Amino acid sequence: MSDIRTLALQCRDAAQQLGQLSTQARSALLVSMADALGADAPGILAANEKDLQAARDKGVGTAMLDRLALNPSRLAGVADALREVAALPDPVGEVTRDYVRPNGIRVQKVRVPLGVIAMIYEARPNVTADAAALCIKAGNGVILRGGSEAIHSNMAIAASLKRALRQAGLPEAALTLVEDLRRETMLELLQLNDIIDLAIPRGGEGLIRFVAEHARVPVIKHYKGVCHLFVDDSADLDLAVRLLIDGKVSRPAACNSLETLLVHEAIASRFLPVAAAALRERGVELRGDTATQALLADVLPASEADYAAEYLDLILSIRVVPDMGAAIAHIQRYTSDHTEVIATGNPAHGETFVHALRSAVVMVNASSRFSDGGELGLGAEIGISTTRLHSYGPMGLEALTVERFVVRGEGQVRH
Amino acid sequence: MSDIRTLALQCRDAAQQLGQLSTQARSALLVSMADALGADAPGILAANEKDLQAARDKGVGTAMLDRLALNPSRLAGVADALREVAALPDPVGEVTRDYVRPNGIRVQKVRVPLGVIAMIYEARPNVTADAAALCIKAGNGVILRGGSEAIHSNMAIAASLKRALRQAGLPEAALTLVEDLRRETMLELLQLNDIIDLAIPRGGEGLIRFVAEHARVPVIKHYKGVCHLFVDDSADLDLAVRLLIDGKVSRPAACNSLETLLVHEAIASRFLPVAAAALRERGVELRGDTATQALLADVLPASEADYAAEYLDLILSIRVVPDMGAAIAHIQRYTSDHTEVIATGNPAHGETFVHALRSAVVMVNASSRFSDGGELGLGAEIGISTTRLHSYGPMGLEALTVERFVVRGEGQVRH
Repeated sequence: MSDIRTLALQCRDAAQQLGQLSTQARSALLVSMADALGADAPGILAANEKDLQAARDKGVGTAMLDRLALNPSRLAGVADALREVAALPDPVGEVTRDYVRPNGIRVQKVRVPLGVIAMIYEARPNVTADAAALCIKAGNGVILRGGSEAIHSNMAIAASLKRALRQAGLPEAALTLVEDLRRETMLELLQLNDIIDLAIPRGGEGLIRFVAEHARVPVIKHYKGVCHLFVDDSADLDLAVRLLIDGKVSRPAACNSLETLLVHEAIASRFLPVAAAALRERGVELRGDTATQALLADVLPASEADYAAEYLDLILSIRVVPDMGAAIAHIQRYTSDHTEVIATGNPAHGETFVHALRSAVVMVNASSRFSDGGELGLGAEIGISTTRLHSYGPMGLEALTVERFVVRGEGQVRH
Repeated sequence: MSDIRTLALQCRDAAQQLGQLSTQARSALLVSMADALGADAPGILAANEKDLQAARDKGVGTAMLDRLALNPSRLAGVADALREVAALPDPVGEVTRDYVRPNGIRVQKVRVPLGVIAMIYEARPNVTADAAALCIKAGNGVILRGGSEAIHSNMAIAASLKRALRQAGLPEAALTLVEDLRRETMLELLQLNDIIDLAIPRGGEGLIRFVAEHARVPVIKHYKGVCHLFVDDSADLDLAVRLLIDGKVSRPAACNSLETLLVHEAIASRFLPVAAAALRERGVELRGDTATQALLADVLPASEADYAAEYLDLILSIRVVPDMGAAIAHIQRYTSDHTEVIATGNPAHGETFVHALRSAVVMVNASSRFSDGGELGLGAEIGISTTRLHSYGPMGLEALTVERFVVRGEGQVRH
């Protein structure tokens, strides 16, 4: 048997033990993991320094170095995040349906852990702790396959977390860090569909496509967020500018940031000049259709590629539309199924917009930036799904469980 | 663009229209589909006769011929099933969560259709109507790929159902029957992961493995049901015999039938002779471990392969276990994650059994034969999942939808 298969089987057996722990025991485990990270901080920071040095030697850019870097306050933040996950409500054991059938059997649907979750991710070493905590809180075993840039940091963090497992008398294999980073080993991991219940890739679109294209295990993912704001003719224009600025400027590199503004033609001549001034003041480059160009000076033409783009940058594409139907048609054509927003003063328009669009998150008069596990009240986020299966949109603890049936009878038979 | 890709894209566009219909409109559509099947009965039965003749010419066995055969009363049953689906509660639009965040935004989770579902199935032509009805009731487009043995029946049924779509002013592509039955076309269909949201294979293990191994679209499936009954030392022995006989004998070819009996050693000498007599009276062959053989005459030895087998026949494997822990360990080793049953007079033992096992359905003092969408109150069954993702166990309409987020605010922004 291959090494990675052996590791995965050990994780599955350990997961079965984890899944049977009480809520209290799983929470206590996460608190002791946070404590372990605190106690092991010097070693973790030293390991991180090794990764940073190697990255500097390779001439890696500053953005990447920043993602990779830990320091005492960041590491304390990671430990605090584990304590927050420990305090979240436990989805495992939740009874989501409970009814008695005519023949007297009582049927419940009860949440159970998924089993074994494989996280495939890139440079940020905090994911090692965050993802492990969420998976374990929901009673799952976790296989962590991080990037080579962070290998020393990840190994030090995993060793610390495993110590907490050991001290709780639990098998360390419940948290398995893959140290063999060869691509063929990752490919082998992604074929283990008799062992791994779910793979969640997190990182750039290249990594996610690689996982999605090669996996035989189920994958939950999202490639990109091409989020739209439609400003209806009934919108409060101040409100619309507020949503626009927050959505485009507050963190342009986030997947829940706006990429395209659609404006009802009846208010375009009032709205666009105000909006453009506010955007340009904050350094946003504008690209628009001819109607936009007629209303605003110095707007580059927006191409098909612009409307399909996730800029992840201070660039916005704009289109003036004759009515809400045209806005909906535009979104249906270019949507990434992530998040769409309408600014409207007419509740019926809001409902039509919600009903017509199938994206994971639809907002009426609220910023696209709320499309986030924390902001939506999930407590923490393990990922975002634009796959309309199992989970759709930001995923919290509940997305790491599934409902199954428990039936209690008094000897009822079918025939 | 290939033909199958074109068909699938048309189905996706049609699905968007279906998903926006009201509950009433979707129900009315199913009723008119049922009416159309009634009106078109002579043509459908003639087409079925063609399939039957071809099957007879090929020398197909009687079991297969029976699965393939329609007659006026079976066809009326299919139409009645559509009317029943029409009358089921609509999962689409159900609000499963509804809360206000501290910043005043109101967050709802709302059920939406999955989009496009591909059904891959074998001989039974009634699946064409049943599966189409369930998918459409839940607002989904459906691509049907049946077996070649039933092609004329399936084409006649699909034409009838499409007529109802047309009469309702809806695009026929919402229900797409694949008439090109070449294997490479099915393979191509299973690669369309930008169009198809879910594939559900139904049929023999060979078909299911083929789909699972070749699909790049998500697949929900179960291979087999190796269902266990554990008779605890506290069990009411009459009750246990009742569960055993119903579970093994009432329909041995069903996946929710029992394959293995585990008996607590403290009651084995009282229980097994009574159980064996009842089973043998009904023609069941027994295979057991040495403890079973010591208590019962004429029992063949049970091998490893027996304990892993889904007999689908009047055969039962038996093991005597020292305690419930050993029963649980046996099940954990041989489970197919389908259905497990405990017969017990001790509620605490029932809870331990439920908690320790991760199968999709766990029964306390009720027959494994209740592990079925209809019996569990789902109204109808589109399939059974032993994949712990999205859905686990019998799947009804709800499993053909997913929850997404709808947020309503008054201009709230994040920063």
